Amino acid sequence: MCSPKVAQTVRERVQRDGLPQLSRRNFLQLGGVSALGAMAASVLKPSRVARAQSMSQVIDLSHVFGTTVPTYLPDEKPSREDFVTVENDGFYIQRWTYTEHAGTHVDIPAHFVADGATVDQYPIEMLVGTAIVIDISAKAAQLADATLDLEDVQAWESANGEIPEGAIVFMYSGWDARWSDPTAFRNADAEGIQHYPGFSAEAATFLIENRNIHGVGVDTLSLDVGASSTFEAHYAVLGRGRFGIEGVANLAAIKDQDATVVVGLPRWEKGSGGPARVLALL
Amino acid sequence: MCSPKVAQTVRERVQRDGLPQLSRRNFLQLGGVSALGAMAASVLKPSRVARAQSMSQVIDLSHVFGTTVPTYLPDEKPSREDFVTVENDGFYIQRWTYTEHAGTHVDIPAHFVADGATVDQYPIEMLVGTAIVIDISAKAAQLADATLDLEDVQAWESANGEIPEGAIVFMYSGWDARWSDPTAFRNADAEGIQHYPGFSAEAATFLIENRNIHGVGVDTLSLDVGASSTFEAHYAVLGRGRFGIEGVANLAAIKDQDATVVVGLPRWEKGSGGPARVLALL
Repeated sequence: MCSPKVAQTVRERVQRDGLPQLSRRNFLQLGGVSALGAMAASVLKPSRVARAQSMSQVIDLSHVFGTTVPTYLPDEKPSREDFVTVENDGFYIQRWTYTEHAGTHVDIPAHFVADGATVDQYPIEMLVGTAIVIDISAKAAQLADATLDLEDVQAWESANGEIPEGAIVFMYSGWDARWSDPTAFRNADAEGIQHYPGFSAEAATFLIENRNIHGVGVDTLSLDVGASSTFEAHYAVLGRGRFGIEGVANLAAIKDQDATVVVGLPRWEKGSGGPARVLALL
Repeated sequence: MCSPKVAQTVRERVQRDGLPQLSRRNFLQLGGVSALGAMAASVLKPSRVARAQSMSQVIDLSHVFGTTVPTYLPDEKPSREDFVTVENDGFYIQRWTYTEHAGTHVDIPAHFVADGATVDQYPIEMLVGTAIVIDISAKAAQLADATLDLEDVQAWESANGEIPEGAIVFMYSGWDARWSDPTAFRNADAEGIQHYPGFSAEAATFLIENRNIHGVGVDTLSLDVGASSTFEAHYAVLGRGRFGIEGVANLAAIKDQDATVVVGLPRWEKGSGGPARVLALL
């Protein structure tokens, strides 16, 4: 609940002179959100025209960050409550409480490496890169413990060419179809061991050491397979100063596209990672 | 503090087979973060080369999100604590508690409009646009209550050409130089009224209705001047389905550049806005 003192402060400030409340009708007359979205019609410089046109499509690779997201540990669910509301206070603001590795989120070296970089120290250039999506959904449909292996990387390169430096390489396993069912997403057995696909340490190491990629991403809860107790893919990635993204959505939409990924990770102070907006620009 | 049960679960899982701990020396041998950053050397398709090269620079427009950030209300400071640590548990994760309008953050229509769109409903295309920076730092240095007026928009267009559709228009007042001193940033007088620059409602309305921009941003705590009690710029922007970014950093660096802004706003469930990573791609 909201601190009564804060609510009073906000209310007094908002109500001092009476606010020009916009009705629903006025809002729609003034041009709703649905009427927008097109970029670059009357434009200022050729280079800006070109840039706006070159980013004509934005694809969201993020799930909604909410209170029912699947989590690696059972009691990592985020919580939220109203802090102030338009009805009572003139503004609406929520208060959140959560641990950093829920929802579509990033793992940064400090998550596993005692002296590793935290989010606020991490170089911004690393968070932008060419999207490469390696599809292992066929074998993941047969075996929940399937790994993205070096052979999968080699097969992708045989078909498409060498993975470029600075890429962000995603494992697409099809697991995101289970997102709305956290029990199916965690897929824990009777002993509590989770089962879902992940990177092999060998593939992750190759991508970093031989292709100099910026980071990796998965559509599951962990860079490693769910059953891992040694977290070798995490160590391979974070131990080499790279990052991982977990709980990535919608990879099928960019699988065969030329896309640039922007990892919108707020600059969480001393963060081990945290919630992020992951966007693909086509 | 961490729930003992959770810590135990993590520790058991991590320690079950003993982890391959990476030493500092190994980490550096394996290639530290500093050796990275260059994009696109050996590359896969011409279009991907072109895209990687066209985004050769990333500029961070975000402040660190931490416990000492300036806030509009005095008691909106975020807090964080260790949830688990590498030393004790094998991983490091923080737990955060904060209200949505702290740090570099976004205001979405629901912040002021009772039936306005929340973050999870907001169209992703709106969060990408051409950066336009209007510099009012000279008059803001003379008068803390200075507004970005219609005349400032007209002067900018006279010098640069018409602001393109889909732009994100920033007020650069120079106020971000005060960020590390929250008292100077809020600049409250003896009666508690804050004083810093903001958009005039007239300028904001013109930019939306006549230029069809995606959103606005400021380097202060509010879209309106700090002394406002009627929040007319907020109503002009959010009431028309657009967004605002507050606490933007580093606008001087992109003032005279052709840049695309990507607003990395995580998909906060029912969010009135929230912390974001705001990046400029040059």
